[in-house]
Amino acid sequence: MRQVAARAGVAVGTVSAYLNHPDRVSAERAARIAHAIDELGFVPSIAGRQLRLGVSSLIGYLSPDVSNPHFSEIAQEVEYRAERLGMTVFFAHSHGDRDREDAYLEAFEQRQVRGLLVSSFAPIEDRLAAMRERGTPSVLVGRRACDEGQPSVSIDDVSGGRQAAEHLVAGGCRRLAFVGGPLPVQQVADRLAGARAALDAAPGPHVLEVIEVAERSIAAGRAVGAALAARPAAERPDGVFAANDVLALGLLQALVAGGVRVPHEVALVGYDDNEFAEASLIPLTSVRARHEDFGATAVDLLFEAIEHWPRPAGELAARQRVFAPELIVRESSRRP
Amino acid sequence: MRQVAARAGVAVGTVSAYLNHPDRVSAERAARIAHAIDELGFVPSIAGRQLRLGVSSLIGYLSPDVSNPHFSEIAQEVEYRAERLGMTVFFAHSHGDRDREDAYLEAFEQRQVRGLLVSSFAPIEDRLAAMRERGTPSVLVGRRACDEGQPSVSIDDVSGGRQAAEHLVAGGCRRLAFVGGPLPVQQVADRLAGARAALDAAPGPHVLEVIEVAERSIAAGRAVGAALAARPAAERPDGVFAANDVLALGLLQALVAGGVRVPHEVALVGYDDNEFAEASLIPLTSVRARHEDFGATAVDLLFEAIEHWPRPAGELAARQRVFAPELIVRESSRRP
Repeated sequence: MRQVAARAGVAVGTVSAYLNHPDRVSAERAARIAHAIDELGFVPSIAGRQLRLGVSSLIGYLSPDVSNPHFSEIAQEVEYRAERLGMTVFFAHSHGDRDREDAYLEAFEQRQVRGLLVSSFAPIEDRLAAMRERGTPSVLVGRRACDEGQPSVSIDDVSGGRQAAEHLVAGGCRRLAFVGGPLPVQQVADRLAGARAALDAAPGPHVLEVIEVAERSIAAGRAVGAALAARPAAERPDGVFAANDVLALGLLQALVAGGVRVPHEVALVGYDDNEFAEASLIPLTSVRARHEDFGATAVDLLFEAIEHWPRPAGELAARQRVFAPELIVRESSRRP
Repeated sequence: MRQVAARAGVAVGTVSAYLNHPDRVSAERAARIAHAIDELGFVPSIAGRQLRLGVSSLIGYLSPDVSNPHFSEIAQEVEYRAERLGMTVFFAHSHGDRDREDAYLEAFEQRQVRGLLVSSFAPIEDRLAAMRERGTPSVLVGRRACDEGQPSVSIDDVSGGRQAAEHLVAGGCRRLAFVGGPLPVQQVADRLAGARAALDAAPGPHVLEVIEVAERSIAAGRAVGAALAARPAAERPDGVFAANDVLALGLLQALVAGGVRVPHEVALVGYDDNEFAEASLIPLTSVRARHEDFGATAVDLLFEAIEHWPRPAGELAARQRVFAPELIVRESSRRP
């Protein structure tokens, strides 16, 4: 606690007050102490007690779904960071349904959360702006906000798509397929746009076949994989880029079951780098966002937005953090 | 709506009121209508609106973790059923930490949830009884309650463990290993007890090696798998039963990477039957609970407990539902 106090430039008693009665410490000092705690990697043994006292600092996280393990990895990072800042997190899931999304936004607002993290595949910024006006700031997670006043944390999906396709082309693939959907979903469209850009820039003739799926599930990947395996080898893509790992795992299983050798006949790249992708018997090449920073940054931006509410819109431009994704090459696309 | 009204024995106007102003319908009628809707498979097109109006009927679901896909499958069933009954669901995660568990129970109570679903690996019934006294009923999920007044929904893990071991023995395995932990966790202990009982009852000599792991993760499974692959073949188990699928997938990858043939040299059985187990390149044999009924039953019991609070403890014995698990045999343990 002495180290934390010195680093934060406050008295030891203030650190103690922060841990035991967070409401009695000014928001500005609390932020400095939280920052110092974070830098020092200091985990207070009374974290549970602090958390219990801090229940008034409830935040909500509304996301489409938990069936994609990528989400649960981010959720965990969000929880750890929020706890360090003395905030508790409630989660709710929209399952991509607009009515349900509205219902849960309202439920969170009625329960007086301090702020919200929101992932959505649909346009939502108008509704978030209205909530901000009424006193509940939010951070858009997974997509870059258009409105300068709306903080967001996202991944450069165009870059991710480009890296995936460049890698397949570098491995000798000439007939590529993109498997993903629905195509109007921004994250999906960006990944496809990146892949197209990579092919446009690559020397030599290439084709890109777009295979749209209604949902990004194992079952959808399996159906596409079975259809590809059933084609004559000459009409099959030699490189497949799937819009996420869940799709890719279904594709992989059906291709192999259909007698197609991966990566020799078809090289395969997924997206998200979830832990099941890495654990596959043919470990999956995937495009990875830095989960640790991603979830923590979302919480930090929300903390700032809560602290400084309402802040003039003009200063917020820098509050839209875009992370660069990284291609992790594994056996599913590694060619001699 | 006419069909629903006839089935529920109420007027059409009551069904309409239930869908639009659920608070104006008596709990007893609401339950009958909900039941009729469920039986008829009727999905009201204004489900979102109903949900929005029903935000006062918030329930909470506190569970250890979302990194196990088995949990997210149950969560989804809970959401669908709750929505049909006009309730919204907030989730929170304890990550197995007692202080955090207390903090979230308190947070839920302070937010005046109507009731709670709670999964925990630790003793928790005293705390749930105290909450029930104060007006917040709950259903214990995943473990049979000891207290007769505490509703619960669980799986017969002893039976599941027995089925797994019987299957391995029937396939010719003589040197079995159980991989799981921590052993004091009731669900883990029950699965092991079932496996032991199966071996005690089987003819001929068998050995059961218990390999305890600190957590049920892919990484833990991978570490055990690598250690087993490094042993001389004669000292290796010929059948492995893992306490869950996440562990089993790590085991499978490390065994195969270490040159051990699955199922020929080592037959492998997991538990939970999550979708990644089925999607593995060597599809995983697993013990499955019937997810659909499981999550829905938890919600139904909670709905009843909310409706009839406080109910005399004596009538509640039948409120502890135990589901029978089912072994799903796939390639990882299928021997000629």
